[in-house]
Amino acid sequence: MQVCNYISTGSWSKKAIKEAKRVGAVNVAATTEEGEGDKKFFKRIPKQNELKLDPDASYAHFTSNNTIFGTQWHKEPEVGNVPLVCDASSDILHKKIDVKKYGLIYAGAQKNMGPAGITLVIMRKDLLERSQDSLHTMLNYKIHAENDSLYNTPTTFAIYIIMLVTRWLLKNGGLNKMYETNKHKADLLYKCIDESGGYYKGHAEKDSRSLMNLTFNLATPEMEKKLIDEATKAGFNGLKGHRSVGGLRASIYNAFPTKGVEDLVSFMKDFQKKN
Amino acid sequence: MQVCNYISTGSWSKKAIKEAKRVGAVNVAATTEEGEGDKKFFKRIPKQNELKLDPDASYAHFTSNNTIFGTQWHKEPEVGNVPLVCDASSDILHKKIDVKKYGLIYAGAQKNMGPAGITLVIMRKDLLERSQDSLHTMLNYKIHAENDSLYNTPTTFAIYIIMLVTRWLLKNGGLNKMYETNKHKADLLYKCIDESGGYYKGHAEKDSRSLMNLTFNLATPEMEKKLIDEATKAGFNGLKGHRSVGGLRASIYNAFPTKGVEDLVSFMKDFQKKN
Repeated sequence: MQVCNYISTGSWSKKAIKEAKRVGAVNVAATTEEGEGDKKFFKRIPKQNELKLDPDASYAHFTSNNTIFGTQWHKEPEVGNVPLVCDASSDILHKKIDVKKYGLIYAGAQKNMGPAGITLVIMRKDLLERSQDSLHTMLNYKIHAENDSLYNTPTTFAIYIIMLVTRWLLKNGGLNKMYETNKHKADLLYKCIDESGGYYKGHAEKDSRSLMNLTFNLATPEMEKKLIDEATKAGFNGLKGHRSVGGLRASIYNAFPTKGVEDLVSFMKDFQKKN
Repeated sequence: MQVCNYISTGSWSKKAIKEAKRVGAVNVAATTEEGEGDKKFFKRIPKQNELKLDPDASYAHFTSNNTIFGTQWHKEPEVGNVPLVCDASSDILHKKIDVKKYGLIYAGAQKNMGPAGITLVIMRKDLLERSQDSLHTMLNYKIHAENDSLYNTPTTFAIYIIMLVTRWLLKNGGLNKMYETNKHKADLLYKCIDESGGYYKGHAEKDSRSLMNLTFNLATPEMEKKLIDEATKAGFNGLKGHRSVGGLRASIYNAFPTKGVEDLVSFMKDFQKKN
């Protein structure tokens, strides 16, 4: 059975590994999972020298951004001569990437591209030959490619919205400008956290911090609840961290405005003063 | 390997059989396919006494409406004590059906329910136990049921539109009224075909005719092309039959108005007079 390399940095990596095991053998080249039992978590991206890659693997897979834990790869892992495969669902289009480095990129649209219900796949043509005929048709990229993505009736509305979003991106300066804005937004919030004198504590290690999902904690779950409740009343929605991590999470995807981050920072400074 | 019964009445049945063979053995209980090589076609639904059902099969599958050939089951096949499974993609919600007769109904939304990109599944709870753990997660109904259809992020916009469509159906008299309208629309057009003195010829056998997709021919492909061209100019779109059948096809799903059918009938009578 063919082996493939997986780098495990969060919930989505673990789900990808579970699926890969159905069709091949998985070498977990690295995992940054910590903790025990119900309290397992991730807080960092592994260093290059931590990767134990099987050089004969058919590909190497990583998850570019981890929504739940708030970590992100800031450059692609070096994986040798095997095709690099990336689940870019939660940070695709947040900056320009060199597509030529990748064998395959797949990304659910629902974060930065458009509505839920469609997945973008960018794939090196020579890899299509690897699609096994034993795969169910809907899971077989070769069949989709041969039929120009029209083997089934695709989710046309989502495709239309993605066209509008890409036009919006181009009109607003493209991906380099988008990255600049995303960097600025994240910097504002991380600065607020880092300059709070330990009142706010970032969950992710500094060099692994995500520009998309910013995770942080307060001293106690009670204080976290108080902040979330008051923030919700003030119009800041969805700040509660994923149940597997707790704490707070600010998701500031492409569509989230700089003004919204500035307002949240003001609110957090104010909350700190009062509490 | 478990055997399942499939009744083959068109392209979708054949695709379903192809997929079923990946996980089990298929007994084709009946097929109404005719012709040779590139000229294969279907024009009817089999009679009850043509079905050679394996009584020990795990289920029996049929396709309630065949979009390409314009045939439709007007009542469910009798399949004995095995669960009845139906691909109702192209006629779901066109009339009231007795869901209790079915073990499983699946239906892509894009004909009568809403936008493309979502599939409705109605399933008897006890059948969920049959979902094999070896299935890929996205193909495993048990996992979807256990997660209230939220294991993945579903196509939210399509779900919203389906809500609006079902409200529209209820407001306009429900499924009995819808069926009455669909019957009336189809009768108008079939009457025009049958009373044309052979100028228009219905493709499907009379007792197998679909209320959703009405397929017919003229004397020659040239005359068919002329009609399609003139009809398109007059605002009647999509009349060209599927490439595997040729001829003409009028798809008159729930959303297609009676007025549109009346206008098409006038146009066809007029065309006949002139040509």
